Amino acid sequence: MSAKAAIAVFDSGLGGLTVLKVLLDKFPNEDFIYLGDTARLPYGAKSSDTIRKYTEQNLKFLSKYDIKLIVIACNSASSTYPKSHFGSIPVLTVIKPGAERAVQDTVGRIGVFGTRATIKSNVYKNSVIELAKKINKEVDVFSVAAPLFVPIVEEGWIDDPITNLIAFRYSQELLQHKVDTVIMGCTHYPVLKNSFRKIFGNQVKLIDSGEAIAAEISKIFNSGTVHRNENTDQNDRIIKILVSDFSEQFEKMTRMLLSPYQPTSIETVDII
Amino acid sequence: MSAKAAIAVFDSGLGGLTVLKVLLDKFPNEDFIYLGDTARLPYGAKSSDTIRKYTEQNLKFLSKYDIKLIVIACNSASSTYPKSHFGSIPVLTVIKPGAERAVQDTVGRIGVFGTRATIKSNVYKNSVIELAKKINKEVDVFSVAAPLFVPIVEEGWIDDPITNLIAFRYSQELLQHKVDTVIMGCTHYPVLKNSFRKIFGNQVKLIDSGEAIAAEISKIFNSGTVHRNENTDQNDRIIKILVSDFSEQFEKMTRMLLSPYQPTSIETVDII
Repeated sequence: MSAKAAIAVFDSGLGGLTVLKVLLDKFPNEDFIYLGDTARLPYGAKSSDTIRKYTEQNLKFLSKYDIKLIVIACNSASSTYPKSHFGSIPVLTVIKPGAERAVQDTVGRIGVFGTRATIKSNVYKNSVIELAKKINKEVDVFSVAAPLFVPIVEEGWIDDPITNLIAFRYSQELLQHKVDTVIMGCTHYPVLKNSFRKIFGNQVKLIDSGEAIAAEISKIFNSGTVHRNENTDQNDRIIKILVSDFSEQFEKMTRMLLSPYQPTSIETVDII
Repeated sequence: MSAKAAIAVFDSGLGGLTVLKVLLDKFPNEDFIYLGDTARLPYGAKSSDTIRKYTEQNLKFLSKYDIKLIVIACNSASSTYPKSHFGSIPVLTVIKPGAERAVQDTVGRIGVFGTRATIKSNVYKNSVIELAKKINKEVDVFSVAAPLFVPIVEEGWIDDPITNLIAFRYSQELLQHKVDTVIMGCTHYPVLKNSFRKIFGNQVKLIDSGEAIAAEISKIFNSGTVHRNENTDQNDRIIKILVSDFSEQFEKMTRMLLSPYQPTSIETVDII
């Protein structure tokens, strides 16, 4: 894999664009390929077996491109893919970086929002507990499935009273447990940060997996196992968006979530 | 096709169970096979080409069973399948029966709620206008895409203040246009009937496609092209539920939507 190869980001839908946006900010010289499996979204409500099958199909599809790193920016997919590589390509999932940051930041009470599949898998809870154990930190984890957050973001009801009400209802349990840190355990959720901020106040830390992944990629670059692209002119860099199903609504959402960045292309592809 | 063959009902997910429930009420001697393509739901946000492809795969799958009639209880799928048969098996979609009833009932102003795909296809609007023209009735149609209704039903937030607020927001345009009849253009929506009733009052007619389809099936039976099953004992009848993906949440929803009926079996199947 050359330094010039792109970083690939995959999500079941378009939520992973919040991760891509953070990476575009942090790595201005890198090219990016984003794959949204929009024909089969959402993964959140599907069984683990089905999600695992789809995830492997997507990784196989992406490995045909010239890429040096894959980010699985989908919590549901991450929870079914425990391996660190696909063939020879390093794979980062959103789980571990988010969990690590939460364990670092917390004073002991972590809340997790996620889709039904993510919460049911306990992937954040297990990951947090394991990481906390390693550093002898005592941590309690409280998980809440919040299946309406994704469609609310996709409807574009951002900074909206109805959204605040829904967020408030889903937050009840976390408020009662007096959490000090909240993992936004789905790539769509950072779009709702203002609602969470209103509910939890400024003292509670909100963990955005995009930022945690960016820190992880920096570490990988610094370790020398994957090389930075030093050459690309920021104005010429490639931001290729691939979707398995296209609609006007998807295009609108892509532009909303990536803004102020513009994709260099949006293509519809057959994953299988 | 023998009289003993079952009636098949297909939906992208479990919303079509509201249609199945009406049919179970109206046709106590018939056996039923329900197919929910839960692995690939929701269809509403997908492109027409993808929905058409999936619909044909589902019809092909169902045609392997001993069935005498297929109901496409999914508005998104119905809008991409204009044909009246699959091979020799008659196919009913939810569109035409609902549109016919609306045209019959209205005094001239019809509102339509649907998923994005259904509304974008204009399938209800076109169907209503065509049917009204035939009987020289003047009708205006106002359509509203309401993508949050399906996840709200799946979350089980029924008769809930947040649900009422969301329904109220989606209803604004229809209220302004003083509609006298509202087509609940997605099989999930009849579950929200109480919310709609609160918003629109008792004077506005709410069109439930399950009831419209039952009337259509009675007509087909009376015409003699498909025969009634006169023999089944109501206590022995088969209510077979097939899903392409299974989860506890799906099972919970199946029991909620079908209640007081009990499925005789719930099986996971591979559609392709």
